[in-house]
Amino acid sequence: MADSNRHWLLAERPTGFPDMECFELVVSEVPEPSEDEVLVRTRYLSVDPYMRGRMRDTESYADPWDVGEPMKAAVVGVVVESRNPRFDAGDIVAGNLHWADYVTAPGYRLVRVDPDLAPISTALGVLGMPGRTAYFGTLDVAEVRPGDTVLVTAAAGAVGSVVGQLAKLSGCRVVGIAGSESKLEFITEECGMDAGTNYKVETVHDAIGETCPDGVDVYFDNVGGEITNSAFRHLTVGARVAVCGQIALYNAEGFPTGPRKLGTLITKRAWVEGFLVSDFDPRREEATRRLAQWVGSGDIAYRETITGGLENAPEAFLDLFKGENIAKQLVDVG
Amino acid sequence: MADSNRHWLLAERPTGFPDMECFELVVSEVPEPSEDEVLVRTRYLSVDPYMRGRMRDTESYADPWDVGEPMKAAVVGVVVESRNPRFDAGDIVAGNLHWADYVTAPGYRLVRVDPDLAPISTALGVLGMPGRTAYFGTLDVAEVRPGDTVLVTAAAGAVGSVVGQLAKLSGCRVVGIAGSESKLEFITEECGMDAGTNYKVETVHDAIGETCPDGVDVYFDNVGGEITNSAFRHLTVGARVAVCGQIALYNAEGFPTGPRKLGTLITKRAWVEGFLVSDFDPRREEATRRLAQWVGSGDIAYRETITGGLENAPEAFLDLFKGENIAKQLVDVG
Repeated sequence: MADSNRHWLLAERPTGFPDMECFELVVSEVPEPSEDEVLVRTRYLSVDPYMRGRMRDTESYADPWDVGEPMKAAVVGVVVESRNPRFDAGDIVAGNLHWADYVTAPGYRLVRVDPDLAPISTALGVLGMPGRTAYFGTLDVAEVRPGDTVLVTAAAGAVGSVVGQLAKLSGCRVVGIAGSESKLEFITEECGMDAGTNYKVETVHDAIGETCPDGVDVYFDNVGGEITNSAFRHLTVGARVAVCGQIALYNAEGFPTGPRKLGTLITKRAWVEGFLVSDFDPRREEATRRLAQWVGSGDIAYRETITGGLENAPEAFLDLFKGENIAKQLVDVG
Repeated sequence: MADSNRHWLLAERPTGFPDMECFELVVSEVPEPSEDEVLVRTRYLSVDPYMRGRMRDTESYADPWDVGEPMKAAVVGVVVESRNPRFDAGDIVAGNLHWADYVTAPGYRLVRVDPDLAPISTALGVLGMPGRTAYFGTLDVAEVRPGDTVLVTAAAGAVGSVVGQLAKLSGCRVVGIAGSESKLEFITEECGMDAGTNYKVETVHDAIGETCPDGVDVYFDNVGGEITNSAFRHLTVGARVAVCGQIALYNAEGFPTGPRKLGTLITKRAWVEGFLVSDFDPRREEATRRLAQWVGSGDIAYRETITGGLENAPEAFLDLFKGENIAKQLVDVG
């Protein structure tokens, strides 16, 4: 075990697009676990778009992070020392911990990860929060049905790529929107989606018209903004919209505006629902078990974009907003 | 029977707020019914906000009206001559007919109105389309539950006043927003709503905060625009929004913009649904029967604002957008 520990702090709150000034890497001693705690050596940490919201000092579904406090993240790691009877040294665990080499945590904040089920990194992606978000969002919120045309944005992302595959498993026709040719290749060739649109080179409104000639029955929104304007114009009568994320707006200053769409909802008798994966926590086991089965059988493909080194975590986070990652963006802490 | 018939034509499409140039009154002979048709003498005609949409040349849930063609309206009237075996002279009927003294219509386009149930004018209001809109919107779309705080806009209108009373019957706490002191008196004293806000003199955001201190569980939206912005800011976690009308925007030129609200739906895990009463046509009898029972028992109060004379129909219609009417606006054609 190393005798020093690195961790990232929130140095200042960003305005608009965050930059490196927002983060500070500090070095301290490796902490000692108290009674009932374990010491975890981070193996992978997850960077996610929702973290942009936690850097903001406004009320939301989770408290904002404090300036000068550690950056938080879902982490998978190895127990190196345990003072909790439920865990032994060597166990693989996951939890909401820190952007750090080492962290101590009480046992109740950790879940055990089965390394025989799949590579442990998947506990942060396809078998973790993003996979469960896709599972509940597609099956419970959007309620996809066989024959639906499903449009998903950020379709090559950690959530979107699983949404598209769950919709395919449910008998839907699936069209994905993503921002590069390699992402389109991933969603159509590996994830089996029926068509893809590169929003950076195509006119999205026209492209949706071509790829969804009978309209959009289910729109799974990960991005918001202009693409969502176009998607709403193609909704069918009785369409459903699951609102999962709004990454296009997370770095906006002030309150973003756009066309008022409630009138469209009347005309289309459509239905829009926002959701948070945490509301489905009582069904966490169900989602993990089924996703693991589909990953095991090859029905759900997954990919990870892995950045090496804790020192590069801020860059990996910032890359999310530039669309650099395909599927799950992780940091390999080593 | 008179030997001449007056009817209003759509003379030109409005841009922005319509004026009298949009309407033309023409006089012709009283039409003769063909086989299977009846000749109806109009008794009351209904003017409704949705008609503004029909004057516009854009695709919607109903075809636009043609310039030079008759203005259409829900009408209740008396059969003066019948060539249809289902109807006799003297029968009271309702249907989507014209802004006219007389009109012929095939029997299948008419429903019989029972004059013993309630005054026949109610077939255009509390027992007609607006009453059914409130019934299905409140009970089926918004799914109000006992204990909910329900906020309704245009609360003194033909739909809103019934929404508020159905929500009270369902065990909810109800707050209405309306545009005059006499409207507030109507909704609180006659309709039994718990509180009211005059949006023309109060700051709506603050007023909602005061009248709904625990937030808004159900928002029944008849107006859209700025008031709806404020309502969304007060939604509780798990709130439901029924989108029924957007009268604040119907005269807008171009596409109105406002704050993007999908992010709020995530934070609040809220649910927004637009609806049209016509989708519930198979359950028309159920709604009419129950509403008639509540009107008969005094559990639902209603009011009508009646403008005399077919010649004043355009003015009665334009007054809707100035908020002149309390509850159902009718034209008494005599």
